Order: sequence, then C-alpha cells, then structure tokens
Amino acid sequence: MKATRKVRVGDVTFGGSQLAVIAGPCAIESRELLERAATAVKSSGAHLLRGGAHKPRTSPRTFQGLGEEGVELLAEVGRRHALPIVSEVMDASQIAQMAERVDLLQVGARNMQNFSLLKELARARRPVLLKRGFAATVDEWLRAADYLLDGGNESVILCERGIRTFGAEMRFTLDLAAVAYARTRSDLPIIVDPSHATGIRELVTPMALAAVAAGADGIMVEVHPLPEQALCDGAQALTPSGFESLMQKLQPVALAVGRTVSFTPRAVAAVPALLEAR
Amino acid sequence: MKATRKVRVGDVTFGGSQLAVIAGPCAIESRELLERAATAVKSSGAHLLRGGAHKPRTSPRTFQGLGEEGVELLAEVGRRHALPIVSEVMDASQIAQMAERVDLLQVGARNMQNFSLLKELARARRPVLLKRGFAATVDEWLRAADYLLDGGNESVILCERGIRTFGAEMRFTLDLAAVAYARTRSDLPIIVDPSHATGIRELVTPMALAAVAAGADGIMVEVHPLPEQALCDGAQALTPSGFESLMQKLQPVALAVGRTVSFTPRAVAAVPALLEAR
Amino acid sequence: MKATRKVRVGDVTFGGSQLAVIAGPCAIESRELLERAATAVKSSGAHLLRGGAHKPRTSPRTFQGLGEEGVELLAEVGRRHALPIVSEVMDASQIAQMAERVDLLQVGARNMQNFSLLKELARARRPVLLKRGFAATVDEWLRAADYLLDGGNESVILCERGIRTFGAEMRFTLDLAAVAYARTRSDLPIIVDPSHATGIRELVTPMALAAVAAGADGIMVEVHPLPEQALCDGAQALTPSGFESLMQKLQPVALAVGRTVSFTPRAVAAVPALLEAR
Amino acid sequence: MKATRKVRVGDVTFGGSQLAVIAGPCAIESRELLERAATAVKSSGAHLLRGGAHKPRTSPRTFQGLGEEGVELLAEVGRRHALPIVSEVMDASQIAQMAERVDLLQVGARNMQNFSLLKELARARRPVLLKRGFAATVDEWLRAADYLLDGGNESVILCERGIRTFGAEMRFTLDLAAVAYARTRSDLPIIVDPSHATGIRELVTPMALAAVAAGADGIMVEVHPLPEQALCDGAQALTPSGFESLMQKLQPVALAVGRTVSFTPRAVAAVPALLEAR
Repeated sequence: MKATRKVRVGDVTFGGSQLAVIAGPCAIESRELLERAATAVKSSGAHLLRGGAHKPRTSPRTFQGLGEEGVELLAEVGRRHALPIVSEVMDASQIAQMAERVDLLQVGARNMQNFSLLKELARARRPVLLKRGFAATVDEWLRAADYLLDGGNESVILCERGIRTFGAEMRFTLDLAAVAYARTRSDLPIIVDPSHATGIRELVTPMALAAVAAGADGIMVEVHPLPEQALCDGAQALTPSGFESLMQKLQPVALAVGRTVSFTPRAVAAVPALLEAR
Repeated sequence: MKATRKVRVGDVTFGGSQLAVIAGPCAIESRELLERAATAVKSSGAHLLRGGAHKPRTSPRTFQGLGEEGVELLAEVGRRHALPIVSEVMDASQIAQMAERVDLLQVGARNMQNFSLLKELARARRPVLLKRGFAATVDEWLRAADYLLDGGNESVILCERGIRTFGAEMRFTLDLAAVAYARTRSDLPIIVDPSHATGIRELVTPMALAAVAAGADGIMVEVHPLPEQALCDGAQALTPSGFESLMQKLQPVALAVGRTVSFTPRAVAAVPALLEAR
Repeated sequence: MKATRKVRVGDVTFGGSQLAVIAGPCAIESRELLERAATAVKSSGAHLLRGGAHKPRTSPRTFQGLGEEGVELLAEVGRRHALPIVSEVMDASQIAQMAERVDLLQVGARNMQNFSLLKELARARRPVLLKRGFAATVDEWLRAADYLLDGGNESVILCERGIRTFGAEMRFTLDLAAVAYARTRSDLPIIVDPSHATGIRELVTPMALAAVAAGADGIMVEVHPLPEQALCDGAQALTPSGFESLMQKLQPVALAVGRTVSFTPRAVAAVPALLEAR
Repeated sequence: MKATRKVRVGDVTFGGSQLAVIAGPCAIESRELLERAATAVKSSGAHLLRGGAHKPRTSPRTFQGLGEEGVELLAEVGRRHALPIVSEVMDASQIAQMAERVDLLQVGARNMQNFSLLKELARARRPVLLKRGFAATVDEWLRAADYLLDGGNESVILCERGIRTFGAEMRFTLDLAAVAYARTRSDLPIIVDPSHATGIRELVTPMALAAVAAGADGIMVEVHPLPEQALCDGAQALTPSGFESLMQKLQPVALAVGRTVSFTPRAVAAVPALLEAR
C-alpha cells in the first residue's frame, strides 16, 4: 500500500492525518438559505462548503438548479466564510466559468464514465472530486481517474457514495469495503458521502463514523437549515444541530484511528461532557 | 397500452410491423474491415449499419476509436450499401459533425443520464437511439427520454442492452421483461442489443430470438468479419455466417408474433430447408 | 453442447421436442378452487398441475399453506384430470409423504442451497424440479444439481425464476440468457417460471414466449380462477382465459424454434383466426 | 429506537456496552489446529470460539466438514479454554446433538429463509445467531427472525455478513448501513462478520473497526493458525498475530463510540505504544 497522495484544495489538505469535512446543501436555492447553511457548518468545524448549481436530475420536469448564478452565490458565500467551495460540473461547457470560482470541481456519479468531460477536466487547473458511479467497480473508478491523471491533472480525490444493489430500504448501499480496497490499489485520497448513500438522515452519522474508522480521508455530508423545505434530497440532509452532533462524535473516532479533525472551540468544549455521558 | 410510435430513420421504420435490424462492428477500424462487414450484413438482410467512431472506453490506455475520420468512413460505406448508419455520440461537441452524416445518433449506456448531452440532442434534427444505463430503472430510462421529448426531439428509440447484476458469467444480464414493461409505460419503439448484454457469441442468437418473442421492435447486433482480431469486444461479435444464420432463424419467430423481417433472396431460399431440418 | 437429457414425469417428457407446460395456483386453497383451476389448465393444454401445500412465506404471520392435507387434495384433483402434479418440498421430513403422491418434487429458490434437503432428495425415487436461487450464479445452480445427481437421482429439471437485482419495478429480473448459458454447461432440461420472475400478470405471456424462443424446454405459470381473491401472489396469476390466450400464442413460437406443444382441439381450432388477425 | 435486547450466551452478553468478539477457523479440521486457534484467539481477547462442523459447500465434491465429530471436538476445546462455542446447524436433524453442546447455534446465510429449520430452532433451548441471507432485505431478515421469536425463542442475535451485488472484487459487499437501519427497526443485538463479507484478509480489520463505529454489538472473524493450508476460505482468515493486531486497534474505536472490549493483560499493555505510534 503506497502512502496516500496529498491533494490541496484552498488551504485544506486531503490525504494527510487531518480529516477533511465538506458540508452544505444539496442544491443552492437562495442566498439566505446558503448563508445560513454556511454559518452553521463553519461554526461546527466543516472545512469546505458544498452546494449544487448544475443539478443532474432524473426528470427534466424537476428543479434543475440555479446554474451560473448559483455558482456565483456559492463563491460569494464561501469567500465570506473563508470556506473553499465544492460544486458539480456536468458538462465541458461549464468548466471555464466554474474553474475560475470553484475550489474543487465535482464529477457526479452519473458522469463518472463521461469520458469527454473527464478529458476536459484533465486540462483544468483545479482539483477534481471524482464520485464513484453507482454501478462502477473499483477498477472502473480508478480507470476513470486515469483519464484525469494521464491527462495531466494530478489533483484527484475519490468519493464513495453508495452503489445500486437489490436493497430498496436505503437509497443506495454504502460500500465502505471499497474504500479499504481502493486504498490497496491507489494512492489517491478517498472520502465518503453518507448522505446520498443512505438517503436517510438517521443513518448519516453512524455511516460517517464508520467511514472514518474504515480509513476514509474525509466525509461529505448534506446540511440544510430547513430540510423539510429543501428543493432536493431533504430527507437525507442533516439539520445544523444534527451536523454539530456528528462533528462531536467524529472527533473521538478520528483519534481512535490516528487521525484528527480540526475543531471549533464550541465543539472542543463539549468533549468532556460527551465522554462523561457514556 | 398505447400503440407504438413510428420513428423513421432513413427509409427504415422502427415501431411498425416490420422489425428493424442494425448490424455491424463494435468499432470502425479500417475502410476494408468496415466494407467487408457492410457487405455481409447487407446481404443477410440487415437494415442499418452500426459502427463506433467515438468509443467510451473504461481505460484511457485502450483504443479510443477513429473519431471524426471514423464517422466519415461509416457514412461513405453506408451510402455505398444504401444502409442508414448508426453511431454513438459521446459529447455535445460532436453533434454538429455527426448530425450531418449519421442517420441515428446513439446515446450509450454510460451517458443515459448525461443530461447536458440529452438537452443538446433534443435540438438535433436526427433521431436518437437511447440505450438504457446498465444500472437504470425503466422509469429513469423513460425520464431520460423525456429530456429528448420535452426538448423537442420526438424521434426517440429505446434500446435495452443488459443491466449490471451479481451475475459474472455473462457480461450483463439481459432484462427482456423490461422491454415488455416499458411497453406498458411508453409508446416509444424498443430494440434489444444481445451482443453487449451477454458478451458471449453463442448467446446472441437465442437472445435475439427471445427479444423478438418478447415484443421488441428490432435488434442491434455486432458483426465483425474477423472477430478474433477485433480491437474491441471481439468475443461477442458474430461472424458474417453467424449473422446470416441468426437472420434465418429470426424470420419464423417474427412471423410467430405477427411481425416480419425483410429478407434477401438468399435468406428466403433457405427457409424450406430450415423447416425441413426440424 | 450436449444433447438435452430426457426426464420423464408421469407420462410427460421434459427435454424432448415437445414443450412441457406446468400450470396451476400458487397455493392450494380449497378443493373447489383447485378443481376449477385444474379444469381450466387441462382444457387449455397444460401437461402438469402445480399447487403449493407447504409454502415458504417471508413472515410467519401470513398463510403457510394447507400442508399434508393440501398434498392429498392436489393428488386427488391431479388424478381426476389425468395431470401429473408438481409441489414444493421444504424439508426432509416432508419427503416421505410427498414422494408417494407428487410426481415432480419442487425445490424452491430459497432452498436451492439447502444442501441437507438436496442430499435427502438425491435418495428419493422421484424427479426433482430445482429452482434457481434468486441470487445464485448459474455455476452455483449446477453445483446444487450435482448434490442430486451425485447422490443418485438423475431425474433433475432446472427452473429459472428470476434473480434479484436493483430493479424494483418487477418482482425479480428474469434471466433468460442464463437458460441459454446453462444449456452450454449442462444436459439437464430447463424450464422457466415467468410468473414469479415478473410478479405482473401482463408480463407473463411475453416472457413465456421469450423463454421458448430462448430455448427453454417448458414453462411453469400460475393460473387462478379468481386471482383477486388468491391468498398468495394473485397479482401474477393468469386467469383461465389469460392462460388459454397464452397457450394459443405459444404454439407458433414453439414451431418457429422447432418445438411443439400438444394442443386441445379448442386451441387448435383457434389457430387460423389467430394467423388471420395479424 | 428501542434499547437493544440483551442476549446471554454462556457468560457473554450480546447487546450491552461491552462488545462481543467471536473468532476461530472457518471449519474444524483437526484437534491440533483447533487447539492452536483457540489458544491464539483466547490470548488476544476473543470471547467465543467459532468453528464449522456441518459445512454448506457450493459443490458436493468439496470438503463437507467433520460433522458430529467436529461438534464434539469444538465442545472439548471450547471447554478447555473457557470459551463458549458457536457453530452452524444446517438441518433440523442436527439440532438435538448440537443443542446439547453448542452455546450459540448459527443459521447460515443460505438458510436464512429455511423456514422449516427456523421453526425447529424456535423450540430449541439455545440462542440463535441468524446470519443475513446474501440477497435478503433487512425486512426479510427481521421477518425470518420472527419465525424464531414468534415460535418462542427470544434469544436471537443478528449477523450482517455481506450481500451479493455487481461487485466482483470482493466476495460480497458488506452492508454496514443495514446494521444502523436494522437498529431502528428491531431491538435484537447485531454483529458483523467482515471475513465472509470481504473474502480478503487485508480488509477484515478496517471493516471490523467500521462495524463497531457503525454501532455493531460485536464481530465474528475467521482466525486460522495456518491460513494458507486451510481447507476452507483461507484467503479471508487472519493469522493469530493479525487477530491480535485487530483486537488492539478495536479498543480505541470501541471507546470512541462508548463501548468497551475486555482485554487481556498483553493487549492492554500494548495500548500506550499504540497511541504513541500515531
């Protein structure tokens, strides 16, 4: 097993001893909601802010995202909170605008084998977060990453987000063994998205903890100030207080596997009580 | 169940009582090989010629197709044999050149939910063959078709090509019940690709017959003059004589379910012997 | 590919040029309903009568079948209609009673790898219908058959009944390519159960036709005089008239692939009209 | 979420704050090998000894286990090391002998829906370890447990051991979210078997840690003194030193989620060095 490659996104390093935490809403809906989400995730210790502007939606008759305007909003809010931003690029035509503003360009699961897009992103001067296709083997995932690496972009981060199986009780089946397996085959940092994987709010925290115990280099979770009003995937979004609770529980698990999470004073202050409560 | 919509591609109609047969190599490799494939499939009764120029390959280190040059070759050979041509478009940037030359624009399984591509194809003046994603439900497949239909392109043909399951003995699992099920939910013509679905030459003919019995409006099969030398997917390609045998067996099954296949004199002449051999 | 082994069940041969058709209700519910089902399937040309007495139900709080009394009823009704009978044996303790009365002992999908049961059935003097486990590879299915064959029971018939995949729109995914694939690896007769595979009445007939086109040696379908009142799996049961229609459509497809189905005078009389209607 | 039910097996409690660790070889092969395995797992802190005597093997032509003699050996060795024992029962006919000697009767994945066996075990005076079928939903798993609970056996422990998916790189796909999900639907203790789930020795430890972080009440792992000579599943067995390393890593993760593992003096002595090494 090779040492994990370090990939820098803004002032955050993926693949080192400190875990990286990406949080934010599924979709960028309005300046006010995004602002509230950013305030919440920053205060609980997240390192990057996520938000979708170009949304790959199953049906053309559902909310498709705010597009370029959403990207601008995200950049503005991220700057204000000193949070590097993560957003999905769906098409080569979006790269120019996004590469200017977005710190980490996400390739969604449905585009993992959109080889034309990967070839263009290989030439972008931005790190890429490559989500695993929900029916892709680990080998196919790493071969997709080769399109970026061979094309000249060495800043690639992998993201496991659940695979499609016969199971219908959860949205997807989170494949944490794939994290450990990919580790033996690649030096790229790997994070885990327990929100999309499970689709159920109550399962996000246990799966985030399990991901870190399995060796993930970070997590990406959906946080929305008002999940029940979210235009997209509200059932899997944590509330701000749910996210704070997750961050508190994450610290001891990270330490247990020799990792750290940077914590806000508020989170650190809560640790003794947490230990006592056991 | 609504009556199936008729979609015309060149002088071929999909969705009528006559089945449509698309045949040809996985990838366009050279003028000579393509010419031999076209001669063979035409003489056995195929209605359209297929060939990949832009190839979506798992690894960037394998043959990626001849690109625009391949499209020109296919157009030239198709014209010479009076066969409308089918080829995959992987990216919006390829649409302009391809829509000029290709009669039926194929969206591959890996791009079924490449919504940016679908939105562009909705504006193309060419029919689209939408392959089912190998992990897509029938509903997701029909919602993907909505991106084309709602966007103004009413000439859409669906293609079932196998789904990914636990089964590792065949390349994919051909889901023929999905053909019958989609029929109850959509008026679009549906064809079946038994070559990619099984990945095994010996299974192509029985699955083509089964597809027609299940109600498919046509089939798409890979035929290569020298499968063992093919640059791509040779193990699933029929030889010219294998394809001729398939076409002979297809006729009685088509008749049995109230459909027809147009036959060359050679194929028709073989029928009495076929019946006698039983 | 070896020639298919012929397995006799009563006066019916599986694996010859004539297809075998098994029909009847999912569960034996009462003498009257079973009598009506038997009358209907016999008059439409079925060769064997099926009915479950010992039912493997997901929950212990649902109808578990009539047990030994059901077996007696089935034997009595089968005898009256001169139809050999097929019923599931769930446990070694049931073999003695059932082997006396049941012509074809069925091993259900959930018991395909119940090796203790298979070892006992290897010693029974009755043919066995071995359903494929819904998550079993073809190789595992054939290895399970080896438990019967190696143990001394050479009268084994395989039955494909759908596998579990990500698809949730149908009950299971009917894997017809597995029929063609198993054919290349085994000489055992193979039949197909489109009722359990799809779980949707409307899909049973197209899938039965597809199964025969794919090379199956027969089919097993659920028929219930009053599907909407069935205690088990009513949504997938054909009505008697639905079954008669299936049998009429089956004949030309069987002929198209060089097989025959034995027909009642009523079914044969309908053929000219069927041909005309195309 | 109801509090987890406590199930006692010998002097070990499943479902309390202390995790339960079951370890031992896949199959009982000889007294000497079993003795070595027991010595090793006991000294590293395992609480129960596992070993298969009746083996459900895919093919009848592979090693089928030592049967009753194996059960006697396991009982003898377990007694000598003061380790309660766990072994699989495949058939009702084995219950009488096994219930006398085995502390925890395991139902294997292939038998999760062997309802005849479950009904008999419901009457046994022994706790049952119910492995999840590799294609069973969580609901089906809990309904299978109902056969035991409704039948009068309230000492049921669930075991997640991987599901069958398209992934072929690992033996099965470990479904840790199912552990968290089942927790919301049932009060039964749940343990995880990372050995069968992954089939790859290197992945056992990260998945065991992840299981505990996800909330599992214990783990079951395969340990063999000479994995390369094992008659069954050697590739997934830990060596004694691999198991000791796992147990050392397990402690801090258990503490991080508010659980404990009982440790031998040797394991406890190693903790400071472990912490320093980070």
